Amino acid sequence: MPDTKEMKEGTAKLIVASSKKNSNMFYATKFFTPDPFIWLKTKDGTKVYVNSLEFGRAQKEAIVDEVVDDFEFNSGNSFPDKLVDILQNNGIEKVLVPKNFEIQYAKALFDNGIKIDIKPGIFFEERAIKTQKEVREIRKVQKVAEKAMSKAINLIQKSERGGLDKLFYLGEPLTSEMVREAIHIEFLKRGCGFEPSIVACGKDSADPHQTGEGPLFADQPIVIDIFPRSHKSGYFADMTRTVVKGEASPEIEKMYAAVLEAQEAAIKAIKPGISASAIDLMIRDHFKKCGFKTEKVDGKHQGFIHATGHGVGLEMHEDPIIYRTNEKTLEHGNVFTVEPGLYYPEIGGIRIEDLVVVTKNGVKNLTQFSKDNLII
Amino acid sequence: MPDTKEMKEGTAKLIVASSKKNSNMFYATKFFTPDPFIWLKTKDGTKVYVNSLEFGRAQKEAIVDEVVDDFEFNSGNSFPDKLVDILQNNGIEKVLVPKNFEIQYAKALFDNGIKIDIKPGIFFEERAIKTQKEVREIRKVQKVAEKAMSKAINLIQKSERGGLDKLFYLGEPLTSEMVREAIHIEFLKRGCGFEPSIVACGKDSADPHQTGEGPLFADQPIVIDIFPRSHKSGYFADMTRTVVKGEASPEIEKMYAAVLEAQEAAIKAIKPGISASAIDLMIRDHFKKCGFKTEKVDGKHQGFIHATGHGVGLEMHEDPIIYRTNEKTLEHGNVFTVEPGLYYPEIGGIRIEDLVVVTKNGVKNLTQFSKDNLII
Repeated sequence: MPDTKEMKEGTAKLIVASSKKNSNMFYATKFFTPDPFIWLKTKDGTKVYVNSLEFGRAQKEAIVDEVVDDFEFNSGNSFPDKLVDILQNNGIEKVLVPKNFEIQYAKALFDNGIKIDIKPGIFFEERAIKTQKEVREIRKVQKVAEKAMSKAINLIQKSERGGLDKLFYLGEPLTSEMVREAIHIEFLKRGCGFEPSIVACGKDSADPHQTGEGPLFADQPIVIDIFPRSHKSGYFADMTRTVVKGEASPEIEKMYAAVLEAQEAAIKAIKPGISASAIDLMIRDHFKKCGFKTEKVDGKHQGFIHATGHGVGLEMHEDPIIYRTNEKTLEHGNVFTVEPGLYYPEIGGIRIEDLVVVTKNGVKNLTQFSKDNLII
Repeated sequence: MPDTKEMKEGTAKLIVASSKKNSNMFYATKFFTPDPFIWLKTKDGTKVYVNSLEFGRAQKEAIVDEVVDDFEFNSGNSFPDKLVDILQNNGIEKVLVPKNFEIQYAKALFDNGIKIDIKPGIFFEERAIKTQKEVREIRKVQKVAEKAMSKAINLIQKSERGGLDKLFYLGEPLTSEMVREAIHIEFLKRGCGFEPSIVACGKDSADPHQTGEGPLFADQPIVIDIFPRSHKSGYFADMTRTVVKGEASPEIEKMYAAVLEAQEAAIKAIKPGISASAIDLMIRDHFKKCGFKTEKVDGKHQGFIHATGHGVGLEMHEDPIIYRTNEKTLEHGNVFTVEPGLYYPEIGGIRIEDLVVVTKNGVKNLTQFSKDNLII
């Protein structure tokens, strides 16, 4: 129990948040609720304080030792005062809180003489080290992503070149919106929530987070980046493929080959003990060798303009970040994306993203979906 | 300009957050991004500091005077330090922050001698007073909710009583999950995101936030509570209907009549100048008169166990809360739900929820959907 020292000293761990919005709160309770409530861990165990609207569900679902039904606390303007009362009634003089603890609560505690320690880094450090069960849950969501990716690529594959090089599906112009809808229907039929998926074609694809809109075109890269979340387990998945219907220009083919080679070499190098920065730098070196520059042109960055990857779990973006500034070594159980990309405003973007888990001696790719062919 | 005094004194307004997770950040920028960035308002205007991954989109979408492309700041562990640098480079000695400002940033500012004022209540007070344009956006989302509600009720209406009083649709048992899927398909086809909608039958319906699962039954109340959010505008809608397929017991009929009467009387009473608490108390009085008690039985609250309503906008739950503890008077432009309900573990739950806007002299119901019939 890593808490022993803290607990002996009479420090309690405290989270005050909505578990829909705060993944630490969901991790601690496994209980989804839209409004903020209180989670407290003392030497006596874990408790949540919820309003009566949530009491029945919390009793059934929350993985805590005690659920306290606190009839009115969420309904007035006195939530910070109520929090102080609860801490004082529990005899708590000092709390350890996550770094995203809200200043309104911090002030109420401070004003009432309750000391606050901020946990640097991750509040629950074990969240970065996924258990086998967590990896299974993530793999389930990743499978949903793969089903949806199949649907998306299928639509593009079955479309035909028409006027102005637009793609047509069953006689209708195929749009980003239509492909996105097909992806989202798969998500919802399989119990997943989602934010708008990226289906970005041509110059839109040069902007890594551009959602994409309007007609899709032949001979242009189409970046498809999807990230469903299981409504049940709360875990995310994340994957990206880039495809071209028709013919790709030599530059696009060269970019695709460089991204794929960089990604495959980086994944091969992943094992416990290697640093996150080393993985990111391998990819940057490879792009340099292939002649793809990352630089600012006309006030806009181009080339490889984001990190190699990010952890995935109860947040879409969590630790570890795979970037040159992160010197931390990778550990057995880390789950993260490996998603190199190249972006040039005049050409478009290429990104290939898999989700991997660090194993005891190496790495396992949680994504089982072809990336061999750019042209479909 | 309510800011004049603050601005003259050299105080800047500051938000540091993801606009996907923080509605003040979205309100200030109208720019959706999953990762945190910085919004700053000084006497010189408004600025955002984003990483280069978001720069192109931010330039197109963010409604600010300046977008600063800050290449690496979001990629390491030094975000709070970076924030301090930015404030110091802008010559800022004091900031006004929202009450949900994160303690990690507050600490970095404090350690570097930058003073922090916390804005009590709502950070952008104008958010509680919707403009005509905002009301139009909310009404658009409400229409999507109504389309989805029609689909849901239609499925139940067209189903038939089968073995064990289960409902059957086209020969298959009709479940909460099937109705929920039909609702969500409407949402996604109409550009809305969503959290799991409530389709709760029988005893499940007695727990106001129970999502519901499994077969739906004849002669039992089915509570359908749906709250889509427009992916484009970011606004929510919210509505609830309760229906019974088959026959309702006299208790359920009496509960439904009491809830409907209470709701209609409360809506009629809404106008600028009346307090939120008065509306809530009207409903509580009506339930008392009808003989429906709100009390704790066997450790569980029953009766009318939540507030009459909550504001709806860029958050699903925002100001004003319509509850007996909120003495504030309603104002022209407030948009909120009116959703009385009665919940008894042995019978089930009844809830009817409309979304209304306070007008110059009264109220307008933004929900145009029948609630006359419990039995369908």
